[in-house]
Amino acid sequence: MKGWVHRVRHLKSVSFVILKDRTGFVQCVLEKQFAGMKVENESAIVVKGKAVATGQQKNGVEVIVDDIHILSKSEALPFEVNKKELDANLDLILNHRVISMRNERTQAIFRIQSAITGAFEEFMRSKGFMQMFTPKLVAQGAEGGANVFKLDYFGKEAFLAQSPQFYKQMMVAAGYERVYEIGPVFRAEQHNSSRHLNEYTSLDAEMGFIEGFEEIMEMENEALVHIFQYLKVTCEKELAVLECEIPELGEFPRISLQEAHDILHESFGKSSPEGDLDGEGEMLICKYFQETYGSPFVFITHYPVETRPMYTMPDSEQPGKTKSFDLLFRGTEITSGGQRIHEYELLEKSFEEKGLNPIEFESYLNTFRFGAPPHGGFAIGLERLTSKLLGLKNVREASAFPRDCDRLVP
Amino acid sequence: MKGWVHRVRHLKSVSFVILKDRTGFVQCVLEKQFAGMKVENESAIVVKGKAVATGQQKNGVEVIVDDIHILSKSEALPFEVNKKELDANLDLILNHRVISMRNERTQAIFRIQSAITGAFEEFMRSKGFMQMFTPKLVAQGAEGGANVFKLDYFGKEAFLAQSPQFYKQMMVAAGYERVYEIGPVFRAEQHNSSRHLNEYTSLDAEMGFIEGFEEIMEMENEALVHIFQYLKVTCEKELAVLECEIPELGEFPRISLQEAHDILHESFGKSSPEGDLDGEGEMLICKYFQETYGSPFVFITHYPVETRPMYTMPDSEQPGKTKSFDLLFRGTEITSGGQRIHEYELLEKSFEEKGLNPIEFESYLNTFRFGAPPHGGFAIGLERLTSKLLGLKNVREASAFPRDCDRLVP
Repeated sequence: MKGWVHRVRHLKSVSFVILKDRTGFVQCVLEKQFAGMKVENESAIVVKGKAVATGQQKNGVEVIVDDIHILSKSEALPFEVNKKELDANLDLILNHRVISMRNERTQAIFRIQSAITGAFEEFMRSKGFMQMFTPKLVAQGAEGGANVFKLDYFGKEAFLAQSPQFYKQMMVAAGYERVYEIGPVFRAEQHNSSRHLNEYTSLDAEMGFIEGFEEIMEMENEALVHIFQYLKVTCEKELAVLECEIPELGEFPRISLQEAHDILHESFGKSSPEGDLDGEGEMLICKYFQETYGSPFVFITHYPVETRPMYTMPDSEQPGKTKSFDLLFRGTEITSGGQRIHEYELLEKSFEEKGLNPIEFESYLNTFRFGAPPHGGFAIGLERLTSKLLGLKNVREASAFPRDCDRLVP
Repeated sequence: MKGWVHRVRHLKSVSFVILKDRTGFVQCVLEKQFAGMKVENESAIVVKGKAVATGQQKNGVEVIVDDIHILSKSEALPFEVNKKELDANLDLILNHRVISMRNERTQAIFRIQSAITGAFEEFMRSKGFMQMFTPKLVAQGAEGGANVFKLDYFGKEAFLAQSPQFYKQMMVAAGYERVYEIGPVFRAEQHNSSRHLNEYTSLDAEMGFIEGFEEIMEMENEALVHIFQYLKVTCEKELAVLECEIPELGEFPRISLQEAHDILHESFGKSSPEGDLDGEGEMLICKYFQETYGSPFVFITHYPVETRPMYTMPDSEQPGKTKSFDLLFRGTEITSGGQRIHEYELLEKSFEEKGLNPIEFESYLNTFRFGAPPHGGFAIGLERLTSKLLGLKNVREASAFPRDCDRLVP
């Protein structure tokens, strides 16, 4: 058996070493010449011995050691990791990420995150979505604004992609119809809040030949139901460590932004910013739907043209509104989505109305001159979904190596 | 039925429209008022009608149209896409990527690529590997040299990751033991060859508690056997379109670099660069192993310390050599891998011998002070694997939106 030393206890003529590896914990009993052996917590060791049944251990077994060898010795730790909670502030935890992830709770977070993406891929593939890989070095930002990282690309100005938006639309129009991508996106935002990262993982999906943007919400709803079910089955141990209960999901409520504003006004006496919800509004709306309908998720639809990107399909039945949605989960927006404009002239006009020069987006715009079908999609922020699901206080806890305005290391 | 117009044929009182979607082709028969209707190739359409059996069509069915509606009309195409091969040069093909991907052969490439990653994930997860997401914005390059893209990160100098090397090692040492990542890597190389991209997709894996680097080769060998088998089962149609036969794989031959040099010298009268193979050498070695042993893959092992990165484990039994390998496939290197240094002092010394200042890599080096187990891994270049497998002439053909020194659009 190979693993790390979780804890050591020396008695008079016997020592106990709790060994941990990716499958769990086991107690090793060091007798005779091994008793009292100096073994540091978190050293990597290899143990040979006989497994014997015992009523003393949770897993019903312990190992009587015949041989033990230290593969790689640990120095004194910056903080103890074998306690339930790490007794260190978040900065120290993140500075010593390799150490902090040895903690059982922290360890569980990224195992669950890996299961989330596994479940997402399984679901998307089962629905005929194809995995795509689109460039992160791009000539234009897709989400507008100044929040892009710039770099020199062989003498040309390039940006880091804020999302695979343009490319996923292009892949749909290229005949793939249904595509997904799991990859990094980059936002040069100066926010240094508990819910923002400057680099995060986006679960993107886009589908063609839709009748309306309700199909997109339905698909995302189903995806999340599948993911939560998958976690219940595959991550029982990790969820127990984190004392996290996966909520039962049904059909998520859908309300328009106007209705959300009305609820905030009537139930909480709160006014909202024009065409959007603020952080407090997102929190209160979620509280309302959790308490009134038992749903931790709620779709907010029909954002106005002004507050959505240039590729968003306007709603011809509700002038000024768009066929768009956000999905809120436990107080935070975890998704933007909607139907996109697939008609060249309308899209060109939309660019101009947003003050953008269509010529600069020619290769994207050309997509819509050659039979691009009605389409739409959504994107889920992986770290936000993980942190809200697991009840983490800060989104950085759901990123193995988070990037914020101050943090580029490790 | 919804899809794109593949081809139209007008007869006197009837027209035939071949409709294509992600599942395949079907002939639609336009009679009466629909006969002679103007329908452009590549327009997106919706068709209602009755499916009837016919011996005339490969799939045994055609659709008698009751209603047909154009969802999105295509303009005149820059080149025809309904022929077997695209009649355009690669630059034009890549400039009009959405159009060129509508071609059946080009379409098949990325469906197969998606299956490759699906198979890779399935395999890695079945072996207990966890998916990880590591930052692409980093403070140091991991592969050395000047081939990194630089950018300003809130006033600090940052780089785009050349590989997730440091981070995958850190995740192994953090207690995850076995990790994989599928993500973009960035190389600011001035190469403009048929086998280089400046951004490509890397299939990375790393595993801990290994006995030797042979385990890594075994794991990669098994992974490729699984991927090829998976393609045979799931991509029969696409492989047929590309006239591609998946080779039978067994255990890949393994030879040292010295043996490779000897073979090149003895069988081809060729001398090689010190400590490496050149492009011609890779081609000839592959030719030799294909013809002599019927293997399209061959591992080249034991590269000298000088030509491998600072994290490579030296081979104590062969001074000056390392526990490293490349994997060649049909004339091209598609993988680098090997065992890594897990001992702090040895690693620090290795950095210094490569002329690197250990202080600058402190957060990575610290990993090895707290019980990092023996470990190693490999990385497969997805586009190279795809292009060599499918017999594509240029690696750009295996990238949906390739990035080279001259190309940043689309």
